[in-house]
Amino acid sequence: MTAYTTNPELDLVLERTVDVAPELVWKAWTTPELIVRWFAPKPWSTSSCEIDLQPGGRFHTVMRSPEGEEFPSDGCILVVEEGSALVFTSALGPGFRPQVAEDGFPFTAVVRIAPDGAGTRYTATAIHADASARKQHEDMGFAEGWGAALDQLVDVAKSL
Amino acid sequence: MTAYTTNPELDLVLERTVDVAPELVWKAWTTPELIVRWFAPKPWSTSSCEIDLQPGGRFHTVMRSPEGEEFPSDGCILVVEEGSALVFTSALGPGFRPQVAEDGFPFTAVVRIAPDGAGTRYTATAIHADASARKQHEDMGFAEGWGAALDQLVDVAKSL
Repeated sequence: MTAYTTNPELDLVLERTVDVAPELVWKAWTTPELIVRWFAPKPWSTSSCEIDLQPGGRFHTVMRSPEGEEFPSDGCILVVEEGSALVFTSALGPGFRPQVAEDGFPFTAVVRIAPDGAGTRYTATAIHADASARKQHEDMGFAEGWGAALDQLVDVAKSL
Repeated sequence: MTAYTTNPELDLVLERTVDVAPELVWKAWTTPELIVRWFAPKPWSTSSCEIDLQPGGRFHTVMRSPEGEEFPSDGCILVVEEGSALVFTSALGPGFRPQVAEDGFPFTAVVRIAPDGAGTRYTATAIHADASARKQHEDMGFAEGWGAALDQLVDVAKSL
């Protein structure tokens, strides 16, 4: 894994063991047709997704509210370690171009996937610039939202 | 080279052929003890430099004004292609942590080095979020500053 350190005062972490194989978790995270099935916690949905799986590549999703309002989001992929780590950020757009985060604070997501028995040790970390961004993200429901999405991811992975 | 595209309305480019070998240009760009000798256009100087040459690693410099005022700057390395490409950004700090740019606008620097006869085709691109950041960087003297620093880099490379 490339250089990074987690700071509990600035970052948020969701860590859990799930009963699907690591390669299925990786596939669910990196395949647009699968992402749209789990990425947004219900009753929200994901109406489209585009992934260019390489450093500098686009990580694009459109989330749709229950009322049908759409929220596009563009990020930049930073690290791709096949089957074990995916890192992307909303501080940059495709091609490493700096961008202003639409929701007020940028964050970098580090998704790590490791074998744990027949299942997967899953760790998702949101890295923020400061404690206020961390709090904003926490208050938006990071733990519940990423947790519910992970449940959906597991359902999708089991259906493969 | 990883995915990125230059947009002339948003980006600034310095492109020049210099009469030193590509491996010396690479060495001058990636060795802290050499960076301090050329990075700041005179009469400014660089009082210290730290480089952790891997994606997520720190790119740190402290520039010193002729009056002795110091201006530290921290960036994050994104791409290292030995001898040919170095990409780093001020939109992220070490470990891919989002950060607020101290001088008001973040940018990503793409330095490309390619053989050109016995010399080097050198291309430095500054990638901005929008046209106003591009203009701000241009007005700060991007072309003159990066050009003068390149002249200093060539002198350092010739001394090796």
